[in-house]
Amino acid sequence: MKNKICELFSIKYPIIQAGMVWCSGWKLASEVSNSGGLGIIGSGSMRPDLLRDHIKKCKLATKMNFAVNVPLLYPYTDEHMKIIIDEKVPIVFTSAGSPDSWTNELKENKIKVVHVVSNLKFANKAINAGVDAIVCEGFEAGGHNGRDETTTFCLIPHIKKNTDIPLIAAGGIFSGRSMLAAMILGADAVQIGSRFVMSEESSAHENFKSKISSLKNGDTILTLKEITPVRMVKNQFYLQIQEAYRNGSSTDELRKVLGKGRARLGMFCGDLKNGELEIGQVSCMLDSIQPAKEIINEIVEEFEEAKLQIIKL
Amino acid sequence: MKNKICELFSIKYPIIQAGMVWCSGWKLASEVSNSGGLGIIGSGSMRPDLLRDHIKKCKLATKMNFAVNVPLLYPYTDEHMKIIIDEKVPIVFTSAGSPDSWTNELKENKIKVVHVVSNLKFANKAINAGVDAIVCEGFEAGGHNGRDETTTFCLIPHIKKNTDIPLIAAGGIFSGRSMLAAMILGADAVQIGSRFVMSEESSAHENFKSKISSLKNGDTILTLKEITPVRMVKNQFYLQIQEAYRNGSSTDELRKVLGKGRARLGMFCGDLKNGELEIGQVSCMLDSIQPAKEIINEIVEEFEEAKLQIIKL
Repeated sequence: MKNKICELFSIKYPIIQAGMVWCSGWKLASEVSNSGGLGIIGSGSMRPDLLRDHIKKCKLATKMNFAVNVPLLYPYTDEHMKIIIDEKVPIVFTSAGSPDSWTNELKENKIKVVHVVSNLKFANKAINAGVDAIVCEGFEAGGHNGRDETTTFCLIPHIKKNTDIPLIAAGGIFSGRSMLAAMILGADAVQIGSRFVMSEESSAHENFKSKISSLKNGDTILTLKEITPVRMVKNQFYLQIQEAYRNGSSTDELRKVLGKGRARLGMFCGDLKNGELEIGQVSCMLDSIQPAKEIINEIVEEFEEAKLQIIKL
Repeated sequence: MKNKICELFSIKYPIIQAGMVWCSGWKLASEVSNSGGLGIIGSGSMRPDLLRDHIKKCKLATKMNFAVNVPLLYPYTDEHMKIIIDEKVPIVFTSAGSPDSWTNELKENKIKVVHVVSNLKFANKAINAGVDAIVCEGFEAGGHNGRDETTTFCLIPHIKKNTDIPLIAAGGIFSGRSMLAAMILGADAVQIGSRFVMSEESSAHENFKSKISSLKNGDTILTLKEITPVRMVKNQFYLQIQEAYRNGSSTDELRKVLGKGRARLGMFCGDLKNGELEIGQVSCMLDSIQPAKEIINEIVEEFEEAKLQIIKL
């Protein structure tokens, strides 16, 4: 495939594995990159030393390009960025913060920068900051998300209509067909999260993977909008949040319910009751754990088949 | 085009105009049907005599098939259904209620029945009730909506994977590209609401049409989930709802804020401050008022162009 994103990142397929806290370390990232996509290390759940370790291992495991995702409002952002520059990571995906803060310095170090956005205002802010591409993430995506609740189906054509920048669609994409649909709507590439949580190489706890395979539609929800909106499984922890809302809790009280370390507890340690289980709406369609390479090959194969079927429409 | 839905309804294009309260009377429905799609009279805002009048006028204005949409929990459902049977309306779209209540009697009268659903459970219920097709409506759609918040991008492949029934996608569809994307995801046809609110033939007040043309992304929201979830413009009336939520209002108190006749006031009478303005997320991409025929022709043309562009992906 030849397109803007494949050229920008020097990758074979316009398939990007989302940088996900507690799920995407060097094993997953390097395997995705070795399989023709772009693998991303999720630094949001790593301390600086651990991030450096993952980057070094990823470089040993693949000769292809890979990226690191950096949530800009996390406590270790400055140290993470220094390590990324020091280790000559070729691509950085930034999210959850202002693209003005780091884009220039990264670009001066010849690092390609992509910023994650959820509406046109943030897209334009990222473009003005000088990023190379944007990820447009719809309401259906797992984990942290925008406040506007704009879905992939509306967000992609809207951003495409109003910008010229290379555009990566995220949220609701898990198959070759959904990849093709996203590209018809205007995307140059897709970013896939939930399906890679279910890869063999993901560091998600097996309890979490098993839980995902049992989810039905309607089993996730975007909540905690007063703090940072996040899509998660409606488990026992979510019932506590719901109870807090019913009692008219303040934002501070909600913060107390949330506490600390919930995402680690659920996704990495496998506590399905008390943990925060971040996953997208597509989870209702995910029921098997596969090697990352097989996931990518299946998606590419289905994408090509779906293209051929279009002629018959 | 040849497909299940075109054959079922004897229409040229698999494009269905949504039956919308206060916006879709005989003028819009007949013009859509005359242009190769399926026009629908929205009975939810009509008393029985008025519905009969619209059906009679629609029959005079088109020789093609058209439908009536009946929200099953509205006060006039029984009288509406008797009129529909009496007037030999060929197709009925039911929503907001159980498909068990009327499907049999309509089918005995040789009327085709379609039910609107928002998740797999309701889809299976409709299939068991014997409907001919289902509309799967995503979270991004305007007006009344499901509680699961499943988006079009996730809902369509999920229903397609688990059922065999002819499937009409709704929510977020306004263009030939989005129509093609919905069909790639598994739909046999599309139902389009918001864009037809902006047709010359729609009975939406010109103030409402003008308001829609100024909307940005994030300007609509799905709210009043405790009563019946509805997507509307964040106008002054919505601020009152928001205030009620902030004050921890009960469902009964919310009902008082809602009051009666808000949709008529906003959409039909043009009171942009106090009225309920039901419209989908795609409203941020709608800026011109066009004849219904032109809308359909543009969609079909873009659909065919997009098909050709895909080959190059």
